[in-house]
Amino acid sequence: MKALVYHGPGAKSWEDVPDPELKDDTDAIVQVDATTICGTDLHILKGDTPEVVAGRILGHEAVGTVTQVGPAVKSVAVGERVLVSCISACGRCRFCREGRFGQCLGGGGWILGYMIDGTQAEYVRVPFADTSTYKVPANVSDEEILMLADILPTGYEVGVLNGKVSPGDTVAVVGAGPVGLSAISGAKMYSPSHVIAIDLADARLEAAKGFGADLTVNNGREDAVAYVKGLTEGLGADVAIEAVGVPQSFELCTELVRPGGRVANIGVHGKPATLHLESLWIRDVTITTGLVDTYSTPTLLSLVAAHQIDANRFVTHHFPLAEMEAAYDTFGRAAETGAVKVVLTP
Amino acid sequence: MKALVYHGPGAKSWEDVPDPELKDDTDAIVQVDATTICGTDLHILKGDTPEVVAGRILGHEAVGTVTQVGPAVKSVAVGERVLVSCISACGRCRFCREGRFGQCLGGGGWILGYMIDGTQAEYVRVPFADTSTYKVPANVSDEEILMLADILPTGYEVGVLNGKVSPGDTVAVVGAGPVGLSAISGAKMYSPSHVIAIDLADARLEAAKGFGADLTVNNGREDAVAYVKGLTEGLGADVAIEAVGVPQSFELCTELVRPGGRVANIGVHGKPATLHLESLWIRDVTITTGLVDTYSTPTLLSLVAAHQIDANRFVTHHFPLAEMEAAYDTFGRAAETGAVKVVLTP
Amino acid sequence: MKALVYHGPGAKSWEDVPDPELKDDTDAIVQVDATTICGTDLHILKGDTPEVVAGRILGHEAVGTVTQVGPAVKSVAVGERVLVSCISACGRCRFCREGRFGQCLGGGGWILGYMIDGTQAEYVRVPFADTSTYKVPANVSDEEILMLADILPTGYEVGVLNGKVSPGDTVAVVGAGPVGLSAISGAKMYSPSHVIAIDLADARLEAAKGFGADLTVNNGREDAVAYVKGLTEGLGADVAIEAVGVPQSFELCTELVRPGGRVANIGVHGKPATLHLESLWIRDVTITTGLVDTYSTPTLLSLVAAHQIDANRFVTHHFPLAEMEAAYDTFGRAAETGAVKVVLTP
Amino acid sequence: MKALVYHGPGAKSWEDVPDPELKDDTDAIVQVDATTICGTDLHILKGDTPEVVAGRILGHEAVGTVTQVGPAVKSVAVGERVLVSCISACGRCRFCREGRFGQCLGGGGWILGYMIDGTQAEYVRVPFADTSTYKVPANVSDEEILMLADILPTGYEVGVLNGKVSPGDTVAVVGAGPVGLSAISGAKMYSPSHVIAIDLADARLEAAKGFGADLTVNNGREDAVAYVKGLTEGLGADVAIEAVGVPQSFELCTELVRPGGRVANIGVHGKPATLHLESLWIRDVTITTGLVDTYSTPTLLSLVAAHQIDANRFVTHHFPLAEMEAAYDTFGRAAETGAVKVVLTP
Repeated sequence: MKALVYHGPGAKSWEDVPDPELKDDTDAIVQVDATTICGTDLHILKGDTPEVVAGRILGHEAVGTVTQVGPAVKSVAVGERVLVSCISACGRCRFCREGRFGQCLGGGGWILGYMIDGTQAEYVRVPFADTSTYKVPANVSDEEILMLADILPTGYEVGVLNGKVSPGDTVAVVGAGPVGLSAISGAKMYSPSHVIAIDLADARLEAAKGFGADLTVNNGREDAVAYVKGLTEGLGADVAIEAVGVPQSFELCTELVRPGGRVANIGVHGKPATLHLESLWIRDVTITTGLVDTYSTPTLLSLVAAHQIDANRFVTHHFPLAEMEAAYDTFGRAAETGAVKVVLTP
Repeated sequence: MKALVYHGPGAKSWEDVPDPELKDDTDAIVQVDATTICGTDLHILKGDTPEVVAGRILGHEAVGTVTQVGPAVKSVAVGERVLVSCISACGRCRFCREGRFGQCLGGGGWILGYMIDGTQAEYVRVPFADTSTYKVPANVSDEEILMLADILPTGYEVGVLNGKVSPGDTVAVVGAGPVGLSAISGAKMYSPSHVIAIDLADARLEAAKGFGADLTVNNGREDAVAYVKGLTEGLGADVAIEAVGVPQSFELCTELVRPGGRVANIGVHGKPATLHLESLWIRDVTITTGLVDTYSTPTLLSLVAAHQIDANRFVTHHFPLAEMEAAYDTFGRAAETGAVKVVLTP
Repeated sequence: MKALVYHGPGAKSWEDVPDPELKDDTDAIVQVDATTICGTDLHILKGDTPEVVAGRILGHEAVGTVTQVGPAVKSVAVGERVLVSCISACGRCRFCREGRFGQCLGGGGWILGYMIDGTQAEYVRVPFADTSTYKVPANVSDEEILMLADILPTGYEVGVLNGKVSPGDTVAVVGAGPVGLSAISGAKMYSPSHVIAIDLADARLEAAKGFGADLTVNNGREDAVAYVKGLTEGLGADVAIEAVGVPQSFELCTELVRPGGRVANIGVHGKPATLHLESLWIRDVTITTGLVDTYSTPTLLSLVAAHQIDANRFVTHHFPLAEMEAAYDTFGRAAETGAVKVVLTP
Repeated sequence: MKALVYHGPGAKSWEDVPDPELKDDTDAIVQVDATTICGTDLHILKGDTPEVVAGRILGHEAVGTVTQVGPAVKSVAVGERVLVSCISACGRCRFCREGRFGQCLGGGGWILGYMIDGTQAEYVRVPFADTSTYKVPANVSDEEILMLADILPTGYEVGVLNGKVSPGDTVAVVGAGPVGLSAISGAKMYSPSHVIAIDLADARLEAAKGFGADLTVNNGREDAVAYVKGLTEGLGADVAIEAVGVPQSFELCTELVRPGGRVANIGVHGKPATLHLESLWIRDVTITTGLVDTYSTPTLLSLVAAHQIDANRFVTHHFPLAEMEAAYDTFGRAAETGAVKVVLTP
């Protein structure tokens, strides 16, 4: 089959590789009907994650059709259409028992396109198929469902739920890329008073309005802290969500938040940030970090199926699988191309 | 009357000052029957809090007898014995409505011995007396009750409750000074598997055992992270409580904690810390900061009155009020003197 | 002044009474600019609450203008326009300290129009004015604000929050009177999958659609349990909210709910219900009861002011104050008249 | 092999039956090293649960040694010593994903000794072995571990955690049988002010003291409501735990509880109770029911292994397996024999 193979920092190609085979009795092989590219894939290509070895097939998001299952697979059958989640779960370990699948100690967690071969390919081997895939209803398109593989649960769990967004809250979202937009969309489900998108790119801020941000701040030109304090009687936002992954945006979040407020970090960081405990120690602030667990995926799937979440809105570009490299190029130049999510299909 | 007056960094004296008078109709005047010194007072004397003006009477902890009340005071009467809490609360603002008294927007919060004259004196004016003092039962000594003015609720709310200590948890407490010992004592109320005291001073570690720590680590000599990971199948502590107030101890806490764990900062910090988001972003960690709110004071008061909390154990030294400066000296050299809490009485 | 006076079961009149006067230093006198009638007032008139004495002025909801304040009132001034809440709060007792104002032990709780004279009058004495009234913004009408005196926080706190309505939930609301409609409106703030209104009157079900119910069941004609189970793979609703106050509707809620689900009772009951523990013991069900506490009033007020809650929709009829008895007649025959809330103004 | 077979209401015998065999690839066969009898077994024998068919082997608690495993079993190996939990869990369904294993939709839940053959036998087939058994450490006795099969997690999860017992609480436990004693023991882990055991039998009340109840009421002779109100300034208990399973004891719990308090039902009920909504509607009461989920079993297991929970104290009688019928007799006459848990070993 063909797949997008990582050849070390800066190097990748869409090339022939052997078809995946069942290894464990809980595996399934899934034919990829739709896949996409994540900002994390760009991080890997930059060499930020040296644990990814050359030869690895990238990608951790797919919708596809099951072509083979191991003998211990119970609830997934050949021919079924499934969502392949970015998180695999053994279903048995301490963390899986408590729904913290992202931290699976039994061989799961985030492994696809990272520790094992991934979904940017014609076929993918999915471990722990019973607890790592989700059947999809007939009336929903592949590309809507694909948004549930990573960005929708990530924005919702790591941003909105960790941040405890509540009705009437003022929510500041720093970074209006795919995950930030997902957090905005998820925050709106809790009827906040205001969702303020903060970004350096006007095009992204414009996109944020479409996802439900009622206010926007270009923090290249404007003072976001002053803006948010002006809106909140000088107190600050109830929740600040970091969706960029650089120290400055995290530090901004800790300045944006009111006494008693919550900072929810979603961004993938490569460097430490400065935590201003000399002012924060007295302010009752809660800061959370997290990898998505996908415990919310069934709920979000039903909301997408009922069209209560408009997943289509994330998809800005389409490519055939064979044009994977062009898709990377478009996604890699998102600021220019306006790409949010690019979808690749056979 | 006599009082301990701050005269700028490094300078203080026990001297004659005018008696306090009622200013607002919700004030009470309380004759101080017992007061104590807090680590925060030492910070003020070092000049770490420039907002404290010269001439200020220090101290934010007392047990005393009400001698005058303003006309709007309802539930506190002359002659009653009361606990004067480190936190004053207007009882009406947004934050007081939700029990977040430490962040009071109506003129309260931590003000005694900081923004207004405090308790290291023969008399003290207590604002918002109805919502800032607590009646004390007859069968409990002044010095037991005095521990409820600050350290017991601080360790419990900001350490134990913010850290969500639960039965079976492994809890690491970094810093075994008065507040760290209070956190240890509070953590034990939740039946953890282990409470590990971590400090640089063997004497403090020895004291920690008396308060319920079953394990101790001198992190001047031992690798606390290796120790805790060895105890927890390589995962780390469920909860790490910071009770020192320097960057190193906070950073240690973020290394001690397991995926999905909680870091509860109690320490008063004067400098920023480094937050290693490059490793923490993926670990589902929750970090909290906080000033005590004293919402737990009534509960703790009843537990002290029932002798379910042994408050006497915190008191290591006694002085007459007039020897305030000697008491400061003893408390300031705690490493040498073994002082935990020093109690001053008329 | 004129007021609606209760003269024992079945008897009331709009008649001359003495103007109210300040009694306690925390009282305010408020001139009533808008008031309304609650289902609870009808209960009182039926004699269901023998603790209400003859001679009592009824009513516990108002928006008005402050005309006098006691000397201890701090944050409410003569001439200000305020919401008079159905719940008065001393602000000092154990329950007020934890935001449970409805259970105030200091002389507050639900007292207006019940234990003391109420708001269906030209003027009303409001105890604990600082903690029992809310300033209202200029850009909102009296009648929108009036909906915050009781029904909006009641449906939200006692129905939606006690029931822990969450995104994706299936929520069944039994009873589509004013409080049921408020619960429907509040539930929608959490993006449920479905809100099913259940009532015996088609007109109320029609109204429920306007407030956001996407499904309706007339349980005079249809089997509500079968309907809800059909919608939920045989499991039942995540949340069932009782908003009637009779045993049958409560018992229906306990049948509607899925294993692990929540039943939130809002209804005012005069008789016991049967709790089928022989089937419920094993089903992990949570049942809550409650009087509104009004801790959510500031949040809801800001959402009404921002027009994110459409409070006007509740108001179906208007009367001058002097036609109070006609208003009672219209409200008392709601099934016929379609009355939801009737508003009376001078 | 030999097993205790149910032959319809009132009829049982210890008799020869075929050895169990693997049916599904996730099964294990476990040789029973220790088993016990539960009050629920007595209910079955009385015919209260007609869904139990004649020929069924009873029992849902065991510690044993694995003798065979199906090919899909991953984490349990032949020769290992395991706890067989009363709850089996498929590990894949909606409810297992959220840790609500007792409500498993995939064929698990409470099935042993109920829907399939159970543990009162020389061998037992355990479905879903990976997610329904727990490895036991070497330093703990079989009979201590056996208490974790049902009563310890049941009292803890359904009583203590559902009831949200917190430090300083007054906790009333109605019924001092095995599960009530487990609830008392679990409640003590949260440092309540008082645990009041309420029962009709003085011997059980005496036993309750050994498990940590500091106060006892014989409600055959004393007025429990008056007693608890006398202790709590007229308010009532913070938490009332029902551990009997008859309407009177449930109704007593609803009278014992304070405004804002919690009633946690553990009892297995055969009849409906009366819920006095005419007084409860206004009191902010939370009532929970539940079957144990065993999500707490790993935590409790580590506390038993560390001797922080004294599990031995529950064991009052020992029998060889072959004297199963004598053991039933002793346990069935608990009021006379003082039996709490009887342990049977080969």
